[in-house]
Amino acid sequence: MMATSVEDCVFCNPSGETVIWSDARCRVLQVTDAGFAGFCRVVWNEHVTELSDLDERDRNHVMRVVAAVERSLRSLLSPHKMNVASLGNQTPHLHWHVIPRYRDDSHYPNPIWAAPQREASKRTLPGDYVAKLRTAIESALG
Amino acid sequence: MMATSVEDCVFCNPSGETVIWSDARCRVLQVTDAGFAGFCRVVWNEHVTELSDLDERDRNHVMRVVAAVERSLRSLLSPHKMNVASLGNQTPHLHWHVIPRYRDDSHYPNPIWAAPQREASKRTLPGDYVAKLRTAIESALG
Repeated sequence: MMATSVEDCVFCNPSGETVIWSDARCRVLQVTDAGFAGFCRVVWNEHVTELSDLDERDRNHVMRVVAAVERSLRSLLSPHKMNVASLGNQTPHLHWHVIPRYRDDSHYPNPIWAAPQREASKRTLPGDYVAKLRTAIESALG
Repeated sequence: MMATSVEDCVFCNPSGETVIWSDARCRVLQVTDAGFAGFCRVVWNEHVTELSDLDERDRNHVMRVVAAVERSLRSLLSPHKMNVASLGNQTPHLHWHVIPRYRDDSHYPNPIWAAPQREASKRTLPGDYVAKLRTAIESALG
């Protein structure tokens, strides 16, 4: 793990991350600056660029974590839909966006990267949310 | 498989699809109307809404196909980056967008759903592309 670390990569040189859950291969971060309550990021620790750079075992692992985060967010926040994406055009270090979506959010039904449709709804997270999400992810991972 | 079929769902009632590869559980489609040469869609045949609705075996299978498509597109088209996303806000039937991205495409480095940055580059697919992609996917799946 961490065989390679790229000097100017924000995921190789993390700063100010809120880590909700982690293991030796990947970590789950809370994304707080996006205006989408509950937005999480699943970051592969090693600097690889594409999903297809992982071998089968690692791919199954990261997707197991992504699915556990998705299931936990659905359970805690009851979104209308979940969005999952690995883009990385700006930061080519494998990471998954896991985003709860609501009919009244700023961009619904469009992707969060499209033009906004309306003002963001005032949606707040439950009390003790990070601890609850961590527990839910651990439970979903079994 | 196909335990449920939803009447007004375009993926339950396909019409005019170019199917590049398929098995009993999912199919790979060519997306030709998006202005992004090589854009593929991996559609789960059964009508499920979220990735986390699949059990582990099915999740590993669909991601194995997504990774095989990604690897094949990288090999055939040499894109600068691959983008992979499961959104489904408009069509809540599990499907993955697998999109080759280029520095000179209309939206790079932004997601394809954001505002365009420039005119689309004139990029064409190799001759006999669909057959080549099918062969590459079969090879990647082993």
